[in-house]
Amino acid sequence: MGSSMGRKNPMRNAVLVNGVILNGPITDSKAGEKFVEDACKIIMEEVIQKAADVTEKVCEWHPPEKLKKLLDLEMRDTGEPHQRLLQLCQDIIRYSVKTNHPRFFNQLYAGIDYYSLVARFITEALNPSVYTYEVSPVFLLVEEAVLKRMIEFIGWKEGDGIFNPGGSVSNMYAMNLARYKYCPDIKEKGLSGLPRLVLFTSEECHYSMNKAASFLGIGTQNVYFITTDERGKMIPEELEKQVQRARKEGAAPFLVCATAGTTVLGAFDPLDKIADICEKHGLWLHVDASWGGSALMSRKHRKLLHGIHRADSVAWNPHKMLMAGIQCCALLVKDNSDLLKKCYSAKASYLFQQDKFYDVSYDTGDKSIQCSRRPDAFKFWMTWKALGTTGLEERVNRALALARYLVDEIKKREGFQLLLEPEYTNICFWYIPSSLRKMEEGPEFWEKLHQVAPVIKERMMKKGSMMLGYQPHRGKVNFFRQVVISPQVSREDMDFLLDEIDLLGRDL
Amino acid sequence: MGSSMGRKNPMRNAVLVNGVILNGPITDSKAGEKFVEDACKIIMEEVIQKAADVTEKVCEWHPPEKLKKLLDLEMRDTGEPHQRLLQLCQDIIRYSVKTNHPRFFNQLYAGIDYYSLVARFITEALNPSVYTYEVSPVFLLVEEAVLKRMIEFIGWKEGDGIFNPGGSVSNMYAMNLARYKYCPDIKEKGLSGLPRLVLFTSEECHYSMNKAASFLGIGTQNVYFITTDERGKMIPEELEKQVQRARKEGAAPFLVCATAGTTVLGAFDPLDKIADICEKHGLWLHVDASWGGSALMSRKHRKLLHGIHRADSVAWNPHKMLMAGIQCCALLVKDNSDLLKKCYSAKASYLFQQDKFYDVSYDTGDKSIQCSRRPDAFKFWMTWKALGTTGLEERVNRALALARYLVDEIKKREGFQLLLEPEYTNICFWYIPSSLRKMEEGPEFWEKLHQVAPVIKERMMKKGSMMLGYQPHRGKVNFFRQVVISPQVSREDMDFLLDEIDLLGRDL
Repeated sequence: MGSSMGRKNPMRNAVLVNGVILNGPITDSKAGEKFVEDACKIIMEEVIQKAADVTEKVCEWHPPEKLKKLLDLEMRDTGEPHQRLLQLCQDIIRYSVKTNHPRFFNQLYAGIDYYSLVARFITEALNPSVYTYEVSPVFLLVEEAVLKRMIEFIGWKEGDGIFNPGGSVSNMYAMNLARYKYCPDIKEKGLSGLPRLVLFTSEECHYSMNKAASFLGIGTQNVYFITTDERGKMIPEELEKQVQRARKEGAAPFLVCATAGTTVLGAFDPLDKIADICEKHGLWLHVDASWGGSALMSRKHRKLLHGIHRADSVAWNPHKMLMAGIQCCALLVKDNSDLLKKCYSAKASYLFQQDKFYDVSYDTGDKSIQCSRRPDAFKFWMTWKALGTTGLEERVNRALALARYLVDEIKKREGFQLLLEPEYTNICFWYIPSSLRKMEEGPEFWEKLHQVAPVIKERMMKKGSMMLGYQPHRGKVNFFRQVVISPQVSREDMDFLLDEIDLLGRDL
Repeated sequence: MGSSMGRKNPMRNAVLVNGVILNGPITDSKAGEKFVEDACKIIMEEVIQKAADVTEKVCEWHPPEKLKKLLDLEMRDTGEPHQRLLQLCQDIIRYSVKTNHPRFFNQLYAGIDYYSLVARFITEALNPSVYTYEVSPVFLLVEEAVLKRMIEFIGWKEGDGIFNPGGSVSNMYAMNLARYKYCPDIKEKGLSGLPRLVLFTSEECHYSMNKAASFLGIGTQNVYFITTDERGKMIPEELEKQVQRARKEGAAPFLVCATAGTTVLGAFDPLDKIADICEKHGLWLHVDASWGGSALMSRKHRKLLHGIHRADSVAWNPHKMLMAGIQCCALLVKDNSDLLKKCYSAKASYLFQQDKFYDVSYDTGDKSIQCSRRPDAFKFWMTWKALGTTGLEERVNRALALARYLVDEIKKREGFQLLLEPEYTNICFWYIPSSLRKMEEGPEFWEKLHQVAPVIKERMMKKGSMMLGYQPHRGKVNFFRQVVISPQVSREDMDFLLDEIDLLGRDL
């Protein structure tokens, strides 16, 4: 009976109900364990051991219709045998983008962290859900410990927080929390009949602000976007004007969402000055530091977030620069009067019984919009344990130093043009093929330049040599955005990046 | 240089920026890979191979303050060495609840599925995010294929859907979608100034309905709870009355949330009759089948959800009875006119560029409230591939047959009393210790009985022999709720459950 120790022969005293034999387990544990073992070998060889290898392809590109034919996606009546399933695993891996490749620069996450990866494997094997201490004792304590340290790094004396599935969701949490603080009745009565609630954020904010405003019933028209300066930072004087405008309109301003590390330009809003305005007007200050929060780990670079300790709430995603694995996102709240719980609780009596035999204040599930919730703090904790605070700091410092190196190289090289001096590790630049280099910067030039990045992107994808994002942005035609994150990345990769763009695009 | 093939000696032409040497990667891949390998061995031995072993403890219970001392949770300036980290992995596993143990009956998920587990390991190793085809080609196609099959099982000819982090979030999606359909302007203008939106759901619904109504700015007072019959099923005539009441009040009814498989009693609302009322009044019908949806896989039991094809949206969590691993939750939508995208899109130009070189209709990220999103469909897909539809069906049939066996045993045994005949695999019952068996069923009896389940729960936790939930519910004092899910469970475990409760509680 393999690992089903302690089981009796299932056929002794067989019980049959509705045609089903109920004795003994029906799964073949031995076969299952063998499959896990064999698959782990494939994962080790095909993903983990190749992760740091620049000679591997970042992706093996196929368009959707072709890829559907290459993969056997159909789910049939009968199951597939062991070897066939292993082949499927191979195929899944083969045709997937290698986000841990040293030359995957396409998003705000990249690279492989061996320690968080182990935590993630443990999580999957244990399959916990963090709502009550009785089913997740370890992971709730880990979450508490991690939140406490993150709160220290923000500079609060105390606070509260919760991990949740994404910075977008963190921003929603904050928006709802600010609304609850503004008017607790809304939880029960809703927004109907109330004056327009208005929130303020910069033009460069993450698109989740609009998603949140619409989801929460506030409406996207009630997100007032504040003009930014040429580096993408919110202009405090413009914020002041907009708050006054909203007041004059008879609306109810309740929240400012500043951004620490914008998605495209990597800009940091001037938090201290924004905090002054929030204080003056009695507005909740939320800082979306999903991307930039990790700079808090660096004594050298934490000044980018100067004033963050004055925020009422902060969103910070260790899955980005600190490589905790998707997703690992905390919403942190300065309030320590159980505001999170008051705002979110629904007091389900089947889950949060009050007559339990332990201290039920550890049952944190009622702070969440979710019921089942993954123990995302754990993967960050494991990396922190393995590297120490100084190791995390070193990662941040190195990423910023590499970004600086790339900026200097871009300035040196013909055909590359920086959009702006970066504050963080988002390096935005155009590649100008030689055919355009002598052209006047008029409408025709920009129109032609706009078409360059997509073509180079297509070529790099089909070659599989690297992945790099591009976008148009606020009147600027398509430009590349290089984001430096992974400690597997070196200056050689920065050089490669520029060489490769030139190689792929010089004929354009 | 180990697996960092193709790298040059990092010290040749060393480049130093801000005191950081930028040549070569700084991570030690060899050490990292070794750690993953050693940790995987621990996971294999301590979690996976013990998963089906009933002689292991379900948990090694310690109260929070003691567990904090047993675990070394502190994150320090310097990292911990290899062996110490492995010890930490051991400790994390040791003190965690074994949710895959055959005698873990505490929640609506349980057991180990070796195939979904492999998919989850692959997911963690590849670390993808499913928003665009370019970074998640395989996982987006898998999601499409899985949604298509789930839609078929609901009985729709076509439809749309999205996987998201939890049934609670699925219910929120549906509520917002119904609201958007009712009045698309709300996306931009918000709820301010509008009449009260009102939705209807049964008294037995999941607590996420209140969470959703408050989060979406609708307000919990505008959730009208419909009386249920003695089995926990919504009474259609009561729904009709409440819709009329809302209309008379000048409110705007827009949505009915029926439940297929309630959390506590496992009750199925009469969907067909509810659909009639929704049709008559032009209301969106959402079915929260997070728990009960899996019965659709069984030709024998799918009649529990008779009428589900008439729903406008359905929430269904394969991570519960189909064991896909937390979380695996789909929101399915009958509409095929891109309603999901219209309702949720924010059109981020840095992510959803329209000048990409492939068919961007595969970039499904803008259907989501999330930005980063996990490929949760993949784990369900892998299990479906491995077991086939018939294998999934067999699991459902077996769980219901085991539930039936347990009900019969409860009826036979002295001291056990069923609350009600179950429809599904939630078996609700009291254990009445001998000291109470001859007592009259008056207030004193109920008060004493109320205290029995918590004490037995404490004892079973401290012994580690099994885990079973209890709760008070709608005027009924604390009772046990046994939920049958895992195919590792057999009638011997059902017998054990009753024997063990009697053993732990007979002196009370």
